[in-house]
Amino acid sequence: MTAFPLPQRPMPAAKPGEFCFSAAGLAHGHIVGMTRGLLEAGATLASVWDEDPQKVAAFVRAFPQAHPARCLDELLGAPDVRLVASAAVPSERCALGLRVMAAGKDYFVDKAPVTTLEQLERARLAASKTGRKYMVYYSERLHSEAATFADLLIRSGEIGRVIHMDGFGPHRLGAASRPDWFFDKARYGGILCDIGSHQLEQFLYFTGSQDARVLSARACNLAHPEHPGLEDFGDCTVTAPNGATGYFRVDWFTPDGLSTWGDGRTFIVGTDGFVELRKYVDLASGRPGGNMVYWANRHGEFRFNAEGQVGCPFFSRLIRDCIERTENAMTQEHAFRAAQLCLEAQALADRAH
Amino acid sequence: MTAFPLPQRPMPAAKPGEFCFSAAGLAHGHIVGMTRGLLEAGATLASVWDEDPQKVAAFVRAFPQAHPARCLDELLGAPDVRLVASAAVPSERCALGLRVMAAGKDYFVDKAPVTTLEQLERARLAASKTGRKYMVYYSERLHSEAATFADLLIRSGEIGRVIHMDGFGPHRLGAASRPDWFFDKARYGGILCDIGSHQLEQFLYFTGSQDARVLSARACNLAHPEHPGLEDFGDCTVTAPNGATGYFRVDWFTPDGLSTWGDGRTFIVGTDGFVELRKYVDLASGRPGGNMVYWANRHGEFRFNAEGQVGCPFFSRLIRDCIERTENAMTQEHAFRAAQLCLEAQALADRAH
Repeated sequence: MTAFPLPQRPMPAAKPGEFCFSAAGLAHGHIVGMTRGLLEAGATLASVWDEDPQKVAAFVRAFPQAHPARCLDELLGAPDVRLVASAAVPSERCALGLRVMAAGKDYFVDKAPVTTLEQLERARLAASKTGRKYMVYYSERLHSEAATFADLLIRSGEIGRVIHMDGFGPHRLGAASRPDWFFDKARYGGILCDIGSHQLEQFLYFTGSQDARVLSARACNLAHPEHPGLEDFGDCTVTAPNGATGYFRVDWFTPDGLSTWGDGRTFIVGTDGFVELRKYVDLASGRPGGNMVYWANRHGEFRFNAEGQVGCPFFSRLIRDCIERTENAMTQEHAFRAAQLCLEAQALADRAH
Repeated sequence: MTAFPLPQRPMPAAKPGEFCFSAAGLAHGHIVGMTRGLLEAGATLASVWDEDPQKVAAFVRAFPQAHPARCLDELLGAPDVRLVASAAVPSERCALGLRVMAAGKDYFVDKAPVTTLEQLERARLAASKTGRKYMVYYSERLHSEAATFADLLIRSGEIGRVIHMDGFGPHRLGAASRPDWFFDKARYGGILCDIGSHQLEQFLYFTGSQDARVLSARACNLAHPEHPGLEDFGDCTVTAPNGATGYFRVDWFTPDGLSTWGDGRTFIVGTDGFVELRKYVDLASGRPGGNMVYWANRHGEFRFNAEGQVGCPFFSRLIRDCIERTENAMTQEHAFRAAQLCLEAQALADRAH
């Protein structure tokens, strides 16, 4: 690879007890990744709550330091808790966030952060009124060392100006282990709103765009008639004001023989080169693990295994943002704008039916 | 890989002198691949013509058996010539084809076979009236052993029903060595008509579709203001009547450091697995050459180097089709339908400007 300095892996952003958070709403397993990311960045886990005691018990087994709150109000009333992380059912995330923010705490919610434009409007208003954050765990960028490294490459000018991004977000269905809400579109929001949100967030980020226009969108159920509420395939094209274009597809067709939950890829095309991220598996390569970054530019073809090399600076930045009221991890507008694009894409796909 | 028999590499389809062809119109280097494909399949090269004597001389150096015809009429008047292969300037391909077919010979033309709907209509009429073939060298499938192997995989049911295809067709610009017509949209037809044609043909073929609808299309010049007639980026989404969806992008942004002219990829998603073709390079893998096929299905992750293994049966089938008046290599309707889709995509992109 061409020479540029690798960054230090992120240092803890807070001393023990300096930045306490709680987990509330454990419907999606992403809460584990969110919690781990915060803990590794130096946050202190105070308490946990969910309406399902079994989910709370499983969480406490994984994170014994978490005190099980008797009710949400107890958790929200704890003065030392500065941030509440949630992976509630998508359609319920906004309502929870409004309570969190009204309680004077920042909110860190799994994607998709909202499932309707009305929720988005309420979240925007609450963020503006309370000054609290409504941050979103767009994990396929924020919790991916391949994405961290790609960001470095791009910022170093290795591929010139970014003109296009493709994202593939295939996921394993595992229908038998999914809860009811997973098959209820009103609750998960549709495939473009749900797993499509990762893709549109990455498009905005990697193309350096504050906004984009959805040009086309599709969402459908191609092969799962036994789950009529499931959208098993979706895709979308977008255009940024600077002319950069994007495409993504998402689906629930990861085959059983794949060694991980999905062969997630990101392709970023620049005027002077391109980057490919093989995020979770380097298909049939014999190399275990993901986080492989491949690229080509004026100087040659390169690859780099980012696993364990560059970390995920989002979490430490988020902690400092919450403490210092800055926006270095992610701006509020970016988080909301990505969510809005997803809703627009989903609405366009829905209108085609 | 899962067990299924590899086919025999194609045998010569004709004895020496049994199937004679000529080359007329050498504007694009694809004429070399077309000629080699026919020769390897057993055809006999009779003659060559182009208005540029330098191009004829270069062709004869590569293929000394080719007799330089004094004029096109001499070539067309030779009774033993059964097929004329051409890589003329795209906008001139149809007019030449009409002469070839009127002379009672089959026509085998580089993609894009036409640049306007009017040309397509004339070609359709001529094919119908003369009974001669207007076949198209969609090389990115027909002359790719990776594509031959993927076809085998799909027909063997390895990935279930095909529901989606993505095609990436990046190309190296090499502006200094390009002729004038390359930068004149009226002559090359636009990027979706030109290099996009490979992609739409593959979509129809791999999804088993006789037709498709263009949902969105973009074509633009993002980074080459010195060549205002060049479209350096284009992309398109299509939907087949059976619900299969497709996306492709094409561009002229291959960076100088890539070891070949373009990192062409095809991704085919099925209900039970998916296939990825790395056609010309397996990026930064350390493996020279392309024709790598990667796939995953219920049984695991697999890869296969198809180089030199499965051949390109299109050419021998084409020769037999011409002799026996069959349509095993490619139906006339498929060739025309793919061309029509390209024109529809290009027109949709053009209307957006």
